[in-house]
Amino acid sequence: MSLTIKLHISTSPNFISQPKIHQNPTKDLPKYIYQTNPLRPIFVRHQRKMSSISTTSNQNWIIKSSLIDPDGGSLVDLVVPQNERNFKISEAESLPKVGLTKIDLEWVHVLSEGWASPLKGFMRENEYLQSLHFNSLRIQDGSFVNMSLPIVLAIDDQTKMQIGSSPNVALVGPNGDLVAILRSIEIYKHNKEERVARTWGTTAPGLPYVEQVITPAGNWLIGGELEVLTEIKYNDGLDHYRISPKELRNEFDRREADAVFAFQLRNPVHNGHALLMNDTRKRLLDMGYKNPILLLHPLGGFTKADDVPLDVRMEQHSKVLEDGILDPQTTVVAIFPSPMHYAGPTEVQWHAKARINAGANFYIVGRDPAGMGHPTEKRDLYDPDHGKKVLSMAPGLEKLNILPFRVAAYDTVAKKMAFFDPSRAKEFLFISGTKMRTYARSGENPPDGFMCPGGWKVLVNYYASLQEEEETKQPATVSS
Amino acid sequence: MSLTIKLHISTSPNFISQPKIHQNPTKDLPKYIYQTNPLRPIFVRHQRKMSSISTTSNQNWIIKSSLIDPDGGSLVDLVVPQNERNFKISEAESLPKVGLTKIDLEWVHVLSEGWASPLKGFMRENEYLQSLHFNSLRIQDGSFVNMSLPIVLAIDDQTKMQIGSSPNVALVGPNGDLVAILRSIEIYKHNKEERVARTWGTTAPGLPYVEQVITPAGNWLIGGELEVLTEIKYNDGLDHYRISPKELRNEFDRREADAVFAFQLRNPVHNGHALLMNDTRKRLLDMGYKNPILLLHPLGGFTKADDVPLDVRMEQHSKVLEDGILDPQTTVVAIFPSPMHYAGPTEVQWHAKARINAGANFYIVGRDPAGMGHPTEKRDLYDPDHGKKVLSMAPGLEKLNILPFRVAAYDTVAKKMAFFDPSRAKEFLFISGTKMRTYARSGENPPDGFMCPGGWKVLVNYYASLQEEEETKQPATVSS
Repeated sequence: MSLTIKLHISTSPNFISQPKIHQNPTKDLPKYIYQTNPLRPIFVRHQRKMSSISTTSNQNWIIKSSLIDPDGGSLVDLVVPQNERNFKISEAESLPKVGLTKIDLEWVHVLSEGWASPLKGFMRENEYLQSLHFNSLRIQDGSFVNMSLPIVLAIDDQTKMQIGSSPNVALVGPNGDLVAILRSIEIYKHNKEERVARTWGTTAPGLPYVEQVITPAGNWLIGGELEVLTEIKYNDGLDHYRISPKELRNEFDRREADAVFAFQLRNPVHNGHALLMNDTRKRLLDMGYKNPILLLHPLGGFTKADDVPLDVRMEQHSKVLEDGILDPQTTVVAIFPSPMHYAGPTEVQWHAKARINAGANFYIVGRDPAGMGHPTEKRDLYDPDHGKKVLSMAPGLEKLNILPFRVAAYDTVAKKMAFFDPSRAKEFLFISGTKMRTYARSGENPPDGFMCPGGWKVLVNYYASLQEEEETKQPATVSS
Repeated sequence: MSLTIKLHISTSPNFISQPKIHQNPTKDLPKYIYQTNPLRPIFVRHQRKMSSISTTSNQNWIIKSSLIDPDGGSLVDLVVPQNERNFKISEAESLPKVGLTKIDLEWVHVLSEGWASPLKGFMRENEYLQSLHFNSLRIQDGSFVNMSLPIVLAIDDQTKMQIGSSPNVALVGPNGDLVAILRSIEIYKHNKEERVARTWGTTAPGLPYVEQVITPAGNWLIGGELEVLTEIKYNDGLDHYRISPKELRNEFDRREADAVFAFQLRNPVHNGHALLMNDTRKRLLDMGYKNPILLLHPLGGFTKADDVPLDVRMEQHSKVLEDGILDPQTTVVAIFPSPMHYAGPTEVQWHAKARINAGANFYIVGRDPAGMGHPTEKRDLYDPDHGKKVLSMAPGLEKLNILPFRVAAYDTVAKKMAFFDPSRAKEFLFISGTKMRTYARSGENPPDGFMCPGGWKVLVNYYASLQEEEETKQPATVSS
C-alpha cells in the first residue's frame, strides 16, 4: 500500500550505523499540527514522490522505512459505510443486546480503526488462547502477528441466557446508544484467574485494570466480528486528537516521512523525554533518513486513578510543542485510544504492535514500560529490563526497529536534562514521577530545565485544582 | 537424517481420510521388546530401505511420516565423549560447585539426551523469557521451536556468591557425584511468582511442582551450556526402559516404522487406553501407513504423591503387553525421563515437543492433558478442552499430527471398554482414577474387561502394600 524499505538488521533489532546516505534533501517541511485540529493546518506544497533510501544490496542493507505494512497486510476498518448504516441500525435494533462499559467501548474504538489489525472483532476462544499462551496469532499464510493482550468482551450469565442461540448480537454503549453488531458470535468461559495470571504474571490484589474491569465482569467471554455503526466519539474536546491509523498513515505520507518513530507515554513530557526524542531523530538522520517523523502518542483510554488525566496531559504536550522543546514540524501528536493494563512486558508488545498498524517502523522502549509497583510487595512488579528484552524477541514484531531508551536525568552542573553519565553519577539528579508530583502539588518549582515553563504550569494548575477539590470534598466526607 | 514424508493437512492438524494406499506390504515384523532390555531382543532380518508412502502431488497430499526431524534439525547430545571424560572431570573438580536436587538431575538427564533439542543446557534469561511469554524459542533461521516449560536451574544467594565471576561451574548430584559442567553461565533473577503465574495460570497454593521444586529453590537462575560427564543412570532396575531419543530413533528405523504415534501417560493402562491405541493404529493403517509403531511412553520423573509410582506402572504396562492387550510387535515401551509440572495446556506442549525429538510424528492428546483439580477450588484447574486446542495451535508443533483422544468408558451391555456413544449414555460407566484406586484399595474387582487381570493384580498388590505400610506407620506417628 505504500513504500516499504526494509532495514535488515540480522540478529539485533536495534540501531545499526551508517547505512548509505541518500542524496536528495527534503524541503518545504509542513506546518505545526498540534493545534485544534492536528491535521488541518498542514500544507503540502509539492507532490514529489516520497523519498527513499538508497540500498546497497551487496552489503545486505535494506532500510526498514515508512510506511511499514500493517499486520496482516491491510488495515482493518470495521466502521459500517454510510450507505449501509440505516439498514444495519434497523438490524441491530432487532438483535439481543449486550451492554458495554466505558472501557469496553474504548476497545470497540481500538478494534474499529484497525489498531489491532488483523483482528476483526472481540476474540473468539482460539484467538484468546493464542494470545494468552503465545502472545501472537497465527494468520492464514502461516506467519505470526503479535497479539499479547486478550481483547475480549465479557458478559454475565443473564446476558448469555438472553442471547440464547442468536448468531449475532447488538452492542449498546454506556449511554444506551446502539454501537455495533457482533456477528457469528462464540461464547466461552471467562476464567479470570487464568487470564490475570497469564497476562500480568501475578494474581496479587490491587492491579488497576483487574479491579476496574476484570473482577466486576461476567463469567463468559463473547467473540465475533464487529460492525461498528458510527465512528466512536467522546465529545470531550479531544476528539480531534483521536487520529485513526489510516489517517496517521495518510498524514505521514503527506509529510513524506521516510521513517516514523513512535513514543508511547501516559505521563507529562519532561525535557529528558524531549532530549531522547530529539536525539532519536538526529540518529535517524545520521542513518540516512531524510525526514523522520515523531509520533508522540499518549495513551488515551483507561488509566489508574493517580495518573495525570488525559486532558491535562494533552494540554501539557501542546505546551511542550509551543515552547519549541519538540519541533512541531517533525512531530505528530495524537491519542492512542487503548485502555492501559499496566501489564509490563506483555503490554509493551501491544503498544508496539498497534503503532506498526499506524505506520511506525521505529519504537522507543523505556525502562520498565507499562510497569508499576507490585501491588502488595515493595518492589517493581516487573524486572525493569524485561520489557525491552521481551519486545526485542516477540513473535510478529520482527519488522519493527526497537530503540532502547537512554536514561536521562537532571545534570546539576549543566543545569539541564542530559543523558546519564555513570562516570559522574553524583552530579545527576533523578526526578521520579512521585517527586515531580510532590513539586507540582506543593507549588515548588523543579530545577531549571527540567520541564518547559508552559508545560510545568499546566501540571501545577492541575494539582492545585485537585487539592482544591479534595479540600472541598474532605469536610463533606467527615460530616456524612 | 531420515525419511521425512509430510502429510499436508492445511488448516486442520488432525486426521484426514484416505491418502493413497501404498502397495508394498511390510513383512517380518520384529519381536517383542517389552522385556528386560526393551531393545535387545529385536531381530531385523532384512535390510530393505524403509517403506515410504506414495504421494499424489496434485492432491496436495504429502504424508508426514517417520522419522520426523528433531527440533532445530539435529538431536542434541550433551554427554562428553569417553576419550574426553577424564580431562573434563579434572576440570570440573577445579570449578565452583552447584548442588543439584533429584529433580534438577532429572532435567540434566532430559537435556543431556536431547529431549529438549535444540536447547543445549539450562536456559539463559533470553530463553527463559521466550519460554514464559511465547512458549517457543526463535532459532537462528528465524523459525520457532516449541518450548513451553522453563527448563531452569535455581541457585541460592550463597551459591551465587561462591561462583563469583567464574564463567563455568560444576554440577554435583544429590549423592555428591560430579555430574556436569555448565559453561558460559548467566545468572539472573528467579521471580518465582511470575514464573508460576505464567506457567500454571494460577498462583494458588498446593501445586505439586511448585511446592516441591520452586518454593524451596533459590532466588537466582543459572543458565549455560551443559557438558554431562557420564550418562545419567538411576540404578533402580528400570534404566533399561530409559531409552534416549537417539536410541528410540534407531529402534524405529530398525523396525522400519513409517509412522510413530506417541502416548504420554502417568497412570496405569486400562482397556480404554488400549482400545484408543489399537484404534489409532488401525486408522493409520487405513490411511496407508504400512508399519505404524506405538511409543507407549510413561513419564518417569517427579510425579505427585498420590500418583502410582513408576516401578509399579512399568510392571503394570509390562503385563498389558504380556496379556496381549497391546501388541508387543508394534509397541515400544520406554520411560520419558521428564519431571511432571501438572501445568495443563502449557505442559502438554512440552510432552508433545519432546516426542518429536524421539521421532514421533503423531501424538495422542487426551482430555485435560497434564491437568489436575484446582488446588483450592472445587473445579478442574484447566478447561479440559484447552490442552487439545492450545496444542493444535502451538508455535513449532506444526509438523506434528495431533490425534484427539476419543472418550472410552465401560460399556455395561457389551461388558468391555468401548468408545462412548452419547445416544446410549446410560449404558456407559465412567471409571475415574479415584474410583479405580478405591477398587484396588478395597481389593474389589472392577467390572470385567476394564483392565487385563495381570495388570490389575499389579495395582491391587501395590495398594495392599501401601495400606500395610500406612498401618505400620500409623501407631508410630501416634506414639511419637
